[in-house]
Amino acid sequence: MKNSVQTAVVGVTGYAGAELARLLLHHPRLKGRPPVFAGRLDEKEAARGGTPLTEIHPQLADKNGSGALRMEPFTWELLAERGVEVLFLATPHEQSRAWVPEALERGIRVIDLSGAWRLTEASNRSIYAFEDEGSAAAVATQTLAVYGMPELHRAEIAGAKLIANPGCYSTSVILALKPLVAAGLIDLSAGIVADAKSGVSGAGKAPSAKTHFMYAADNLSAYSVFGHRHTGELLEQVGLSAGEIVFTPHLLPIPRGILSTIYVRFNSAQTRDSVAQVYREFFAASPMVRFYEKSLPQIQYVVRTNYADIGFQLDPSGRRAVIVSCLDNLLKGAAGQAVQNLNVVSGWGESEGLE
Amino acid sequence: MKNSVQTAVVGVTGYAGAELARLLLHHPRLKGRPPVFAGRLDEKEAARGGTPLTEIHPQLADKNGSGALRMEPFTWELLAERGVEVLFLATPHEQSRAWVPEALERGIRVIDLSGAWRLTEASNRSIYAFEDEGSAAAVATQTLAVYGMPELHRAEIAGAKLIANPGCYSTSVILALKPLVAAGLIDLSAGIVADAKSGVSGAGKAPSAKTHFMYAADNLSAYSVFGHRHTGELLEQVGLSAGEIVFTPHLLPIPRGILSTIYVRFNSAQTRDSVAQVYREFFAASPMVRFYEKSLPQIQYVVRTNYADIGFQLDPSGRRAVIVSCLDNLLKGAAGQAVQNLNVVSGWGESEGLE
Amino acid sequence: MKNSVQTAVVGVTGYAGAELARLLLHHPRLKGRPPVFAGRLDEKEAARGGTPLTEIHPQLADKNGSGALRMEPFTWELLAERGVEVLFLATPHEQSRAWVPEALERGIRVIDLSGAWRLTEASNRSIYAFEDEGSAAAVATQTLAVYGMPELHRAEIAGAKLIANPGCYSTSVILALKPLVAAGLIDLSAGIVADAKSGVSGAGKAPSAKTHFMYAADNLSAYSVFGHRHTGELLEQVGLSAGEIVFTPHLLPIPRGILSTIYVRFNSAQTRDSVAQVYREFFAASPMVRFYEKSLPQIQYVVRTNYADIGFQLDPSGRRAVIVSCLDNLLKGAAGQAVQNLNVVSGWGESEGLE
Amino acid sequence: MKNSVQTAVVGVTGYAGAELARLLLHHPRLKGRPPVFAGRLDEKEAARGGTPLTEIHPQLADKNGSGALRMEPFTWELLAERGVEVLFLATPHEQSRAWVPEALERGIRVIDLSGAWRLTEASNRSIYAFEDEGSAAAVATQTLAVYGMPELHRAEIAGAKLIANPGCYSTSVILALKPLVAAGLIDLSAGIVADAKSGVSGAGKAPSAKTHFMYAADNLSAYSVFGHRHTGELLEQVGLSAGEIVFTPHLLPIPRGILSTIYVRFNSAQTRDSVAQVYREFFAASPMVRFYEKSLPQIQYVVRTNYADIGFQLDPSGRRAVIVSCLDNLLKGAAGQAVQNLNVVSGWGESEGLE
Repeated sequence: MKNSVQTAVVGVTGYAGAELARLLLHHPRLKGRPPVFAGRLDEKEAARGGTPLTEIHPQLADKNGSGALRMEPFTWELLAERGVEVLFLATPHEQSRAWVPEALERGIRVIDLSGAWRLTEASNRSIYAFEDEGSAAAVATQTLAVYGMPELHRAEIAGAKLIANPGCYSTSVILALKPLVAAGLIDLSAGIVADAKSGVSGAGKAPSAKTHFMYAADNLSAYSVFGHRHTGELLEQVGLSAGEIVFTPHLLPIPRGILSTIYVRFNSAQTRDSVAQVYREFFAASPMVRFYEKSLPQIQYVVRTNYADIGFQLDPSGRRAVIVSCLDNLLKGAAGQAVQNLNVVSGWGESEGLE
Repeated sequence: MKNSVQTAVVGVTGYAGAELARLLLHHPRLKGRPPVFAGRLDEKEAARGGTPLTEIHPQLADKNGSGALRMEPFTWELLAERGVEVLFLATPHEQSRAWVPEALERGIRVIDLSGAWRLTEASNRSIYAFEDEGSAAAVATQTLAVYGMPELHRAEIAGAKLIANPGCYSTSVILALKPLVAAGLIDLSAGIVADAKSGVSGAGKAPSAKTHFMYAADNLSAYSVFGHRHTGELLEQVGLSAGEIVFTPHLLPIPRGILSTIYVRFNSAQTRDSVAQVYREFFAASPMVRFYEKSLPQIQYVVRTNYADIGFQLDPSGRRAVIVSCLDNLLKGAAGQAVQNLNVVSGWGESEGLE
Repeated sequence: MKNSVQTAVVGVTGYAGAELARLLLHHPRLKGRPPVFAGRLDEKEAARGGTPLTEIHPQLADKNGSGALRMEPFTWELLAERGVEVLFLATPHEQSRAWVPEALERGIRVIDLSGAWRLTEASNRSIYAFEDEGSAAAVATQTLAVYGMPELHRAEIAGAKLIANPGCYSTSVILALKPLVAAGLIDLSAGIVADAKSGVSGAGKAPSAKTHFMYAADNLSAYSVFGHRHTGELLEQVGLSAGEIVFTPHLLPIPRGILSTIYVRFNSAQTRDSVAQVYREFFAASPMVRFYEKSLPQIQYVVRTNYADIGFQLDPSGRRAVIVSCLDNLLKGAAGQAVQNLNVVSGWGESEGLE
Repeated sequence: MKNSVQTAVVGVTGYAGAELARLLLHHPRLKGRPPVFAGRLDEKEAARGGTPLTEIHPQLADKNGSGALRMEPFTWELLAERGVEVLFLATPHEQSRAWVPEALERGIRVIDLSGAWRLTEASNRSIYAFEDEGSAAAVATQTLAVYGMPELHRAEIAGAKLIANPGCYSTSVILALKPLVAAGLIDLSAGIVADAKSGVSGAGKAPSAKTHFMYAADNLSAYSVFGHRHTGELLEQVGLSAGEIVFTPHLLPIPRGILSTIYVRFNSAQTRDSVAQVYREFFAASPMVRFYEKSLPQIQYVVRTNYADIGFQLDPSGRRAVIVSCLDNLLKGAAGQAVQNLNVVSGWGESEGLE
């Protein structure tokens, strides 16, 4: 185990990138070793030697030198010069598809926040329509990828060269369902409903009709019904077939946070404690999941934390349950989970720098 | 058919009361005949001859005399003097239980916005724990009550002495489900999920921990899971048994509006058009329901209107559908539907004063 | 006085355009005479005969034919065929500069919601950098323009061929200041401060970094300090020199509404009543201004109305006052005032269709 | 200098209390020494040995023992037993007036977040109407109080027994004005306008009509015009007479954050750099103030930080400026500044535990 590593971040300009920068700059293992921030810059910015990080994200300014940090023009040589060992990609899917093979070839470990390498089944990937689908490099790269959810794959992550950081919605639904499905409690033939709601940061930083304040504020809308990209992650990670779950995302008029309300039927009548015990055991060694014994989670309690909060309510019959799962889409749903994966892959405490 | 009627409103101080006042003051059939506003006043207010309406709701002020309107001390004599024919109660349930029998005895028609008289089955009413449950007066009154949803009960409402105005959540779910259940399309044994989200005005005007801005803003929370009072209305009006539906309300960080996402399975494979045709026919004569042929409704399109908007998306298999139903909880979910009922009971155009 | 007129709207796609459409479609004088909606359409939309209005603004849908209304490809011939008498332009400034001369030449009266023709002084217009500045057509057109604030220019508006509808911020500040300045109460040498805050709809419908939900929500920011385009309107209409007022706009995290807090010093000590009397008299014949005798206006009381609400608080010394002025930027600040101007120019009741 | 101290917090249930708990629980100097949380408990809670902190604030839960922390029944004996050296009071004013003298007598240093001891002049205190005003104990206590703004009083704070933590509005306005007034730049006879806007957490946790979501959301309102309690702090700390400043607070529809827009006139024409230089020098040794060289601060950049951000814009004449000052009302405006004071009084780095 190393005491520290040199990291780099590509894609710091976005919302997840900003959180990643904040977390890495304050991580106790990375004191004095700020990440290399790199990306595509226009000529003017490149000529200045890169854009100061505090111009991109004024909230990151402090009086102790953060002003000196810059987003520099990306080259593989830059990464080599700086001795980068772990590369975070907070980039569009296609960019991650293109860059990851080269990074791996250069011996750089990658934690990829995009959807590029999360899915094992080609049928589940088809929704992304990757241009390099089926190419030798892509096939080889995919076999190296580990789905970066420590609560499910801690051991594989520890040795992974490529960590595919999970989707935000996926994280909230998988953590709620996996323990119960693994324990055989759920009647899959009855079908599962996952009704999920996310804050607007989940839609990304590019201005669009749907991210306009006037569209999102005082509103709620469902979208991508029967067709959201995160569905494949649910199927693969929970172990479901397509007919066994309906997943519907909604756009909430809040900056950040996801709440998923999940409806299941049990194979046999359960008690509050029989279900709770399954959750308690599954997450016993998982510091970033909080199980609610009495009440239900709410978005306000997870926002700006890396926790996933899970609670449930049982029907008097004991045959049906409503599970509520909450997280911050930019932290446990993106940058926080990426740092959690850094901790795991580095052999550090899983929640270091995340509390 | 009368050209106009004299109305009265008890409970104008609340959010639904304010909307009711606004609608009745601008209703084309009620020009020059403002409602009598009455309620419990403290001594000081009573001594002034009542509280000016524009002190209670400054937004109702205009320069043409609205300043002269007052909320007066309630007495039955006042209603008699003013010749009140239709009494709107926007009052707590218990108050409606107590007052409706007397109003009916005095020959005054009642449109009650509370939950007091909506439920036929005692088992469904038990959640309210009405003090007069089972009394002769209550039993007799209940038999007179008609559930005030014109889209389902237009003919009965036309002659009703007591109209039990539906709950806000109930309206959004019943309108979405009734056509499909009545047509026999839905596989009830598979269970229906109704995941509903409402703005904060639905929680009423009394300040509380849950209506505090700091609790509701930037948050989302589920509540009354497996135990919301509106569930009984769903069962009775759609014709379901308790095990056939799960209804979960959530508190949205917006002032007003409800969106319900409803998950159903069909008995046999459907096409987009076979389902759409059921909705089109069911609502052909209903001016206040808008069926969405292509897209899905959103809260922004119904807020401050009396419309219920309904749309759906079909699974490629044709066996599952997600239905989205939206309305403004203070209008179609309360005051607007109450005025719609006034129109029906008066023989006027169903949407008069509501567009 | 005509009982009705044929109107047209160019620019219905924006926020002010949507409000204008709503108001004109429900105006009692325009029953059965919907506006002609016209604009630039791409080939596909033009080939369909225009875009249905309810596709552009779903909230405008009703079951009585609104579905038949379309935004059609704009030509002057279309306007002629339909007998358009009054043309509303809810268009960018440059477009209004280009189109108004032709409309006037064709004998069509124009109510222009842009900033194109509001300013008499070239120095005040310079901030717009109009391409046609100083051209003969522009000079001639400007002389025909009347500033469309009925509370100040009712008589001139009545006969105007070109009505320059005021800016939203300008309306809120001018209505608050003009009465006191006209009465000679204010010590102009001490300087006036107008600190104004507007909802996001004021920034227009085009998606941008500043209208992104993530930028506006949970935030407040000042902008265009010492350099906002509406400043010229304040100077010309109130009668101030540039050094006598500082005007600072802020972006509020709400959809609509403006609140301006205005700080003045008086030439001599005033009483509450001496100031109130000035306001009462000035607005005695103005149905769309509500003066607050006791409390201060708030945005919640004016939103979705055409009222401008004005109130003030006096320093115990009687020498300083804080004036609060509120309005809905899309109504009294844009589309509502435009319809008010239509009423004035048509000889109808000034508030018809606006209550 | 001690390496650590034992703290206690009374008033953890409120918003500032929650932030204080979070900061102290994660403060690097207080590792393994959590604060004693104490307060008035009802019998039932007292009988359980106090209320678990995570029941009061679920967001504070982690898996490493925070569940063991409780708010215990307050007694002076409890504080003595636990060896409390520094007591934070996040309590109502009257409670701080009553408790501080006893704490001081017992040799406990106090950092009081209320308004109880901030004001030196009796005339400025009169707005609080303290019951013990003029009593010997109160007079003696007041002489011990130091106004807890390190940027102005670092040296006095270092030795203080009683630190009166500043008001939230006051902090934002004083930090913006003090440097310029101290440098003699401002023409006080022209009057200063401070137009301040605060998020709802500033209004406290008690549910009320004004903190109801429906009142605050989509709204903006001015309040306490010419009469806000924080005005006295401005006068005393900046050194102004009452006629030299108008301060107007507004309630913003956001959870937290203050933005103050401040209007000043200069005695002589200034340049951007001459003004900037005053700020740079004044705050050179102040790690928690960020001066903006180019742009203006916004609430989004300070929320959830302990920074006060200050920027300004100069009129082309160089005679007038608009200063914008932002902070998080619960951090730099309350709990964060309190911890900053703890750092100063303990001889630690001023920003420890605050970045």
